[in-house]
Amino acid sequence: MSASKLSAAVCGQRLWQRHMEMGAIGATPRGGVNRLALTAEDAAAQATLAGWARQRGYAVTRDEIGNVYVRRAGTDATAAPVLTGSHLDSQPTGGKFDGAYGVLAGLEVLEALDDAGISTLRPVEVAAWMNEEGSRFLPGAMGSGVLAGAFTLESALARVDSQGLTVAAALAEVLSRTPLPRRELASVKPFAYLEAHIEQGPLLEANAATIGVVTGIQGIRRFVVEIAGEEAHAGTTPRANRRDAMVTAIAMISALQAATCDPEDRIRFTVGRMHVLPNSPNTIPAQVTFTIDLRHPDGVLLESLSAGIHALAAQTAALHHCSAMVQNVSVVQPVHFPAPMVGVVRRAAAAEGGKIMSFPSGAGHDAMYLHRLCPAAMVFVPCLRGISHNEAESATTADLAAGTRVLARAVLELAGHP
Amino acid sequence: MSASKLSAAVCGQRLWQRHMEMGAIGATPRGGVNRLALTAEDAAAQATLAGWARQRGYAVTRDEIGNVYVRRAGTDATAAPVLTGSHLDSQPTGGKFDGAYGVLAGLEVLEALDDAGISTLRPVEVAAWMNEEGSRFLPGAMGSGVLAGAFTLESALARVDSQGLTVAAALAEVLSRTPLPRRELASVKPFAYLEAHIEQGPLLEANAATIGVVTGIQGIRRFVVEIAGEEAHAGTTPRANRRDAMVTAIAMISALQAATCDPEDRIRFTVGRMHVLPNSPNTIPAQVTFTIDLRHPDGVLLESLSAGIHALAAQTAALHHCSAMVQNVSVVQPVHFPAPMVGVVRRAAAAEGGKIMSFPSGAGHDAMYLHRLCPAAMVFVPCLRGISHNEAESATTADLAAGTRVLARAVLELAGHP
Repeated sequence: MSASKLSAAVCGQRLWQRHMEMGAIGATPRGGVNRLALTAEDAAAQATLAGWARQRGYAVTRDEIGNVYVRRAGTDATAAPVLTGSHLDSQPTGGKFDGAYGVLAGLEVLEALDDAGISTLRPVEVAAWMNEEGSRFLPGAMGSGVLAGAFTLESALARVDSQGLTVAAALAEVLSRTPLPRRELASVKPFAYLEAHIEQGPLLEANAATIGVVTGIQGIRRFVVEIAGEEAHAGTTPRANRRDAMVTAIAMISALQAATCDPEDRIRFTVGRMHVLPNSPNTIPAQVTFTIDLRHPDGVLLESLSAGIHALAAQTAALHHCSAMVQNVSVVQPVHFPAPMVGVVRRAAAAEGGKIMSFPSGAGHDAMYLHRLCPAAMVFVPCLRGISHNEAESATTADLAAGTRVLARAVLELAGHP
Repeated sequence: MSASKLSAAVCGQRLWQRHMEMGAIGATPRGGVNRLALTAEDAAAQATLAGWARQRGYAVTRDEIGNVYVRRAGTDATAAPVLTGSHLDSQPTGGKFDGAYGVLAGLEVLEALDDAGISTLRPVEVAAWMNEEGSRFLPGAMGSGVLAGAFTLESALARVDSQGLTVAAALAEVLSRTPLPRRELASVKPFAYLEAHIEQGPLLEANAATIGVVTGIQGIRRFVVEIAGEEAHAGTTPRANRRDAMVTAIAMISALQAATCDPEDRIRFTVGRMHVLPNSPNTIPAQVTFTIDLRHPDGVLLESLSAGIHALAAQTAALHHCSAMVQNVSVVQPVHFPAPMVGVVRRAAAAEGGKIMSFPSGAGHDAMYLHRLCPAAMVFVPCLRGISHNEAESATTADLAAGTRVLARAVLELAGHP
């Protein structure tokens, strides 16, 4: 009963208007946003969020790593809060929806609760996580990662951007631009976490679905492969005498593509970066270095594919009289959201009607770290052609509102009646 | 009779010693030389050559583009000279033999003629061609190219190095460091041209041959291939939805390798340079640009392979939902040295004994342009593992001397008796 009232109180136009106002902060000429973490634009986005929150009387705080929290009180002040949110920072040529949607949808849920006159037992909080994108400071999902203990506060504060400025220094700047009451990281003990996000992939749109019930986040393995051959003259060296690092790289990547080509099209295999030495048109390359980004929801399969990469690389290099060194530079285990949490989201989506799909997220999100702290789940909405990390990123008013109604129902179920 | 006397007068030790003295100019810590065209080191190398020449009373001159000539008079002062030589400039991490050998072998021939008391009808001249390497100023073989009219003096003098300095300005510097009497380019009208050079490839060494009779210089085609796809998220984009410029490049290069893989191993196909955009590990590449260096002695085959490259690139790109643009950036037609000139070298080599091989040069040389001015041919000697354009470049005293004896016999046959 109150869930339907809450759903009806979600205002698609208000939500859309807030995306446009938020998107004006760091707006780029081609319709996107450039709002890197801990810049003046990021601070301005936080100030705008805090302004909207204070109009409703919600408390706004910031923790030691710069995560911002908006809190709507529950009837039981001692109960652990239901947390929702995402991030306000963007890629340098990012879109208006990646991250911002999860924060603004969360705020919309708080306001819809107010407008519907609904009290909850638990407090409901909206978080804007610091530096999810990792564009300015590595690693990404820094704020949620520190909260969840994936890395220490000290190590995060010491990271530097390309100008040599530390997170600590950039954060001090944000604090002075947009001062907020301090909150201790240690005090953030959510009952459950929900994150709404644009899909950043093509599945919902391609299947004419409105809601993605996210079952988890696929695992990621990153590799750097370095092939060493021998520099030689392109005109004088017969094929049989070459130790050509480029030929070896081509054969190796071909073999790896074949090995990761599953009929279900679930394995994500990407060679996104390549460097060649000496990179001269008339010299046979002595060294080729490339990255592999490999993802799949199944950790066991990822482990087996990873072993296969090492074996294939060694075989191919030997066949071409080169050597290959394969480094595992990053391992992120797949996340499987707890079935009860996924069930909450699925029930909420079913109550709203419309076509629903269930699948794991292809991209990483803050929910990946929140999952370590408390039961977590996510809601996806479609975005145009799956395009993201791009100024052309786009989503419809209707889809954003539909996702927010699902989020609102799920938050209400978790926050409980007084 | 006089040919055997001349051959016996060639002094391997003197020749070797001169390589060591010349190699000390611009010497690198790892045993190579860094003697870029028109630098202080290049000027010092010319001064050293001029010093040795003057000790013997040979006239030394320099033309408008900076080619240096050492002249031993013939009995007929009006006869067109037999010209031999190569270059004294090097790659930034070059070896002691590439180029220097042809100049020093030429000087050794002049001295051996003196020492054997042999007069020739025609003058014999040794040239040190300006900027063969093309490392500092493009294009390479600049001095011989201007002489042969491949490009104008004005256009060559106007070329700039990476610091923005023109050839004209750098040449003026060399003129002030190592002044030499001026000679007009128009006055250089050789009867024939011979060039001795290290092979820069592995064939002679692999076949235990001492002398390479060079039948010509293979043709070169250079291409730049630019593949355009679409940037997308590595984690969220299924294989079926990707327009991956890297996957397309891999497939295209694989297909091109197969198409240029001749059983005789004569086609030289090299992808030496590749650039990827945005070159980020977790983004599907939107653009891959790579070079193709394609060589073969047969111009008709090169033309047909070239057409095949365009067709295969278009097919492969279409198959992968990308577009490809193939630019022909350079076409150098194969050179076939005249049979009588090749015959002169072959007879000289046969007279010396030892194993001889005949093949076209894989690399470009100044002889490529001299061939346009007069009948030309070349003599190759082995170098260690075919390694060149490398500080590790190496050749033996015995091989250098054997090549010089062949050069001496060929020069004598062409220069004629008084």
